[in-house]
Amino acid sequence: MERTPENIESIPVLKIGEEGRSRAVQPVAREFMLTIFLNDKELVTIMCSPENIRELAAGFLFSEGLIRAKDDIKKMDIDEWMGTARIETARDSAAESRFFSKRLLASGCGGSATFYDVSDAAVLRIESRLKVPAGKVMSLAKVFQHRSDLYRTTHGVHSAALCEGSKIIVFYEDIGRHNAVDKIFGRCLLDNITTKDRIIVTSGRVSSEILQKIVKRGIPIIVSISAPTDLGVKIADKLGVTLIGLVRGRKMNVYTHEERVI
Amino acid sequence: MERTPENIESIPVLKIGEEGRSRAVQPVAREFMLTIFLNDKELVTIMCSPENIRELAAGFLFSEGLIRAKDDIKKMDIDEWMGTARIETARDSAAESRFFSKRLLASGCGGSATFYDVSDAAVLRIESRLKVPAGKVMSLAKVFQHRSDLYRTTHGVHSAALCEGSKIIVFYEDIGRHNAVDKIFGRCLLDNITTKDRIIVTSGRVSSEILQKIVKRGIPIIVSISAPTDLGVKIADKLGVTLIGLVRGRKMNVYTHEERVI
Repeated sequence: MERTPENIESIPVLKIGEEGRSRAVQPVAREFMLTIFLNDKELVTIMCSPENIRELAAGFLFSEGLIRAKDDIKKMDIDEWMGTARIETARDSAAESRFFSKRLLASGCGGSATFYDVSDAAVLRIESRLKVPAGKVMSLAKVFQHRSDLYRTTHGVHSAALCEGSKIIVFYEDIGRHNAVDKIFGRCLLDNITTKDRIIVTSGRVSSEILQKIVKRGIPIIVSISAPTDLGVKIADKLGVTLIGLVRGRKMNVYTHEERVI
Repeated sequence: MERTPENIESIPVLKIGEEGRSRAVQPVAREFMLTIFLNDKELVTIMCSPENIRELAAGFLFSEGLIRAKDDIKKMDIDEWMGTARIETARDSAAESRFFSKRLLASGCGGSATFYDVSDAAVLRIESRLKVPAGKVMSLAKVFQHRSDLYRTTHGVHSAALCEGSKIIVFYEDIGRHNAVDKIFGRCLLDNITTKDRIIVTSGRVSSEILQKIVKRGIPIIVSISAPTDLGVKIADKLGVTLIGLVRGRKMNVYTHEERVI
């Protein structure tokens, strides 16, 4: 897995503990300001980790319904120094003007302007016969947490993974939990990686906006190390998603659609 | 402290553990959609915990520079059933149009459109002779974590507190870490509670937007159970804020302005 040091900065700190005071260098997560321009118009500024910007920009546009497939992207220019992603798309002015008229601030870590629209629900209900043994969910969560090495060094980022069985296919980290999920779907879009019958694992809380994102990609099972919100549970229940949370050691809660957990 | 049960919902879950499968009822944090209307114009929709909506609405407007004092609020109507806060203010069309032209998605949990503007820095630099003994920071963090009972039951919310010495003056919880801080400053604004020479404690990561909020209220010391981002550290350093993070048990890191920690 790629690990660019740009995601972390070393900061001198004063450590105070049982043994008194000492000087040390502490790694902290970097916070990067990315401005996305869509067809020469400033779309949004996202605070994120400065890694996998291309995936984040593509995933954000997908989650917001501004692109549907790789071919919709005519051109993408990333300027990491300026903190800009300039994207030209096959124009869909209806979706764009919907986006520009919305102002939703998500509760969760990371940029999301996603809105849960009940009218989407009927269209998007997940139909999948995927089943997963409970023991595999636990071992998957263990591997996932092991891989979150940036979290381990800085205690400051979220991670998300796309998995097949207990194998991790795509793994990303970001200071925003929404961004980590957007990076995964951006990568899937750019590299034609299927999401069908696969599992999403996330370190962060599962709220309504995360559900909305994974339903858009047809993911039948979401596994979280943290807890869901009530709205997350209700949307998962209604849209046919198996929501597993608080996976810690040999324990887990299945909140919805337990028929997929064998 | 008030604790309305509306913040939590009980959800039936399937628990899987060492001893096999069992049915249980699990408390989860509720996620509430609050739309703020400012002078009859839809301003923003925030995903939040459905508690202390009045404080959240006032704090959000303050953080965004749309009000400066309690007297700026001419009228505030909260409709908890509809999820709306309608606020009339002494009009400041410059600030309003600045807000409506911005689209910044914060990395962190909770609504924030706050932007770190370098031109603010000179004006806002914190001058305070407040000092705090390291031992008091540790005991304060312990009391703070004990009080976060909603977190303990649902593992799904952040908390924030305004403190004087090791005494908690105001304490709020929210699914969004920005919202918890906004609720505190909203309460201070509505009830004329001073923030001078006081300490903010937060369960969440300290990123640039949280710094921006607390600098606006002139807070000299911020204590976090979690880690900061590099931008959080840089802004704290530049604006004269003492930033203490990763306070766990008898250990802590002082990232900036250690002269206040005795």
